[in-house]
Amino acid sequence: MLRSKNRIGLMMGACGVTMALAGSANVALAQGPIRSPEVLPDHRIVFRLRAPNAKEVFVGREGAQRLAMTKDDKGVWSVTTDAVEPDLYGYTFIVDGVGTLDPANSLMKPNILNTQSMVHVPGSGLPWEVSDVPHGTLVRHFYKSKVVGDDRDFYVYTPPGYDSRASKKYPVLYLLHGFSDDAGGWSAVGRAHVIMDNLIASGKAKPMLVVMPLGYGAPEILGLTGAPRTPDVGQRNIDKFAEALLTEVIPSVEKTYSVDTGVKSRAICGLSMGGGESIMTGLNHLDKFGWVGSFSGAMSMGGQDFGKSLPALDSGANSKLKLLWIGIGKDDFLLKNNQQFTEWLKTKGVTHTYTETAGAHTWLVWRRYLADFAPLLFR
Amino acid sequence: MLRSKNRIGLMMGACGVTMALAGSANVALAQGPIRSPEVLPDHRIVFRLRAPNAKEVFVGREGAQRLAMTKDDKGVWSVTTDAVEPDLYGYTFIVDGVGTLDPANSLMKPNILNTQSMVHVPGSGLPWEVSDVPHGTLVRHFYKSKVVGDDRDFYVYTPPGYDSRASKKYPVLYLLHGFSDDAGGWSAVGRAHVIMDNLIASGKAKPMLVVMPLGYGAPEILGLTGAPRTPDVGQRNIDKFAEALLTEVIPSVEKTYSVDTGVKSRAICGLSMGGGESIMTGLNHLDKFGWVGSFSGAMSMGGQDFGKSLPALDSGANSKLKLLWIGIGKDDFLLKNNQQFTEWLKTKGVTHTYTETAGAHTWLVWRRYLADFAPLLFR
Repeated sequence: MLRSKNRIGLMMGACGVTMALAGSANVALAQGPIRSPEVLPDHRIVFRLRAPNAKEVFVGREGAQRLAMTKDDKGVWSVTTDAVEPDLYGYTFIVDGVGTLDPANSLMKPNILNTQSMVHVPGSGLPWEVSDVPHGTLVRHFYKSKVVGDDRDFYVYTPPGYDSRASKKYPVLYLLHGFSDDAGGWSAVGRAHVIMDNLIASGKAKPMLVVMPLGYGAPEILGLTGAPRTPDVGQRNIDKFAEALLTEVIPSVEKTYSVDTGVKSRAICGLSMGGGESIMTGLNHLDKFGWVGSFSGAMSMGGQDFGKSLPALDSGANSKLKLLWIGIGKDDFLLKNNQQFTEWLKTKGVTHTYTETAGAHTWLVWRRYLADFAPLLFR
Repeated sequence: MLRSKNRIGLMMGACGVTMALAGSANVALAQGPIRSPEVLPDHRIVFRLRAPNAKEVFVGREGAQRLAMTKDDKGVWSVTTDAVEPDLYGYTFIVDGVGTLDPANSLMKPNILNTQSMVHVPGSGLPWEVSDVPHGTLVRHFYKSKVVGDDRDFYVYTPPGYDSRASKKYPVLYLLHGFSDDAGGWSAVGRAHVIMDNLIASGKAKPMLVVMPLGYGAPEILGLTGAPRTPDVGQRNIDKFAEALLTEVIPSVEKTYSVDTGVKSRAICGLSMGGGESIMTGLNHLDKFGWVGSFSGAMSMGGQDFGKSLPALDSGANSKLKLLWIGIGKDDFLLKNNQQFTEWLKTKGVTHTYTETAGAHTWLVWRRYLADFAPLLFR
């Protein structure tokens, strides 16, 4: 898990071997290494970028206003932030209007549409920080989806001590990513495996499997394929996602792993697009999911009429659902959408837990929501 | 496995929800999407980058000379290559001397010291291309290494149909990455899991597990920690790597998985630094490894005196080794080092297979070597 990075000249003099890097991207290296980002002991962050010919450089950081950087006489731009809360932050440099990753930092915040660099400002035992506890594993499965018609993958977190040969049956949380993430988003950015390791070690969460599927039922929603995005793409994206989950991913998981297949041992939650998918998939299949959660959910991707998306939902759900949990940040652009949805739930007499927290539409919120939500499950 | 990328405006009008991207890195997006890279039907590649204020932009591609790009009146730089062989190529833009990833492409070639973008020029059933065959899984394990003193990971490829509950015992290939890669390098860049799926489906390779550990016994060799690189760092890097492999990774694998623990069912090979590590670890532990391979190996990282690194090696190895395979590209800067090593092997009377192929010190060579080497194993 060596993920910090510095572009240095790779003269391994001690070894007698010059390990020349392939390619010709290392023009800047001859001028010496740049250290970026540098996290100071007081939690200020120094960002640096060598770009002698640039006219204007900013750094944009997750959850913050962008900052102008200034150039020194060696062509190195830098800026020092105020002290920030310990967390994992995505960031990008904007060089003369062009977004670019930090070339001195190998820690990435992968995203299909907007990969950024990432900086860790260390705290003390925060949920997403690796600690000296037993670790689970991450299993990446590959399959061809007949429902969607593409090659895709899903990840399975197995908790410490999981043994498919043992008789113990584990509950399963299906954990969905947001629009423009891929199936690896909840591990690479969300650190779900680290959060679960820590929650399980402290006894806060029950040992469980966490399955992280690809969340696109209609991948053309991403706008990458050249295929037209028809007006029904939002609803089709949800419907085909649910079909792939229910007929492909869940049967594969329940065949491969030692899991409890009862409705009270199956949960679904997700963030943003995945929050909407969790609500629609979970509440339309109360025979499958006893626990449903939404983190900053996009509740209207299938349309503004909740009754059309959830035609059968009424207070009869209350005897089936162990938990319906909805969280949204007060600075999230989806706040009103979530308020409208929970008001609608009240008109239907559906019991739910609704919480408005600090924060916007960012991973800073979603890692905390997972740490709050997972302990509630399978009780 | 959605990995193609385009930075587009994310107005999901069809869904009634504006999915604003976090951060402020999308200044350029308002000017419309850039398509890069575009692979033409005749296998030329068009690279594009919007950088209106740049004075000079090049693209550096793996295994090729860098190409100057030219700017159009909208500030978009582009260049079209000659037709290239179908393959996976790393590349980077060099903008006024600063290396940068392609912001329009989410397909990465991750590397601790030099992450690049990657472009796939499709062929017809090449070993590293996903095809409609049964797929194995990739399992990522996390652990604290007592030998090295850090938190690290290793990956395990399990072949299609692998079942830890079954009685079948599988052979294991330990597959090592090169200097500046991490434990994910052989899957993210080398596509080892895809290569193995294809080889196994066609009957060319026996079903086997492939274990991909982190290859640093002395991580300060990367020059990132601030710790001094003492003259013995190369030898220590090999020695501690071998100790971590033999006392931590292998016991963990053999406890967790249904594997054959006989010497004839254990192979080790690797690329560059990992090639040297495979030679030194394998040939110093003939009681552990019956099959040893080196891909473009760095044979002198422990010093120029092969006899000092392999003090006990003599023709007695021939009755123990099923295969000692050494491959090197004719344009590789380590060609002479490999020639010297094989000459030394001859003086020791050690039987080996030595092949000089086309190619330089690049992943283009190493994917092919794995496809050549794996079929020879466990026969």
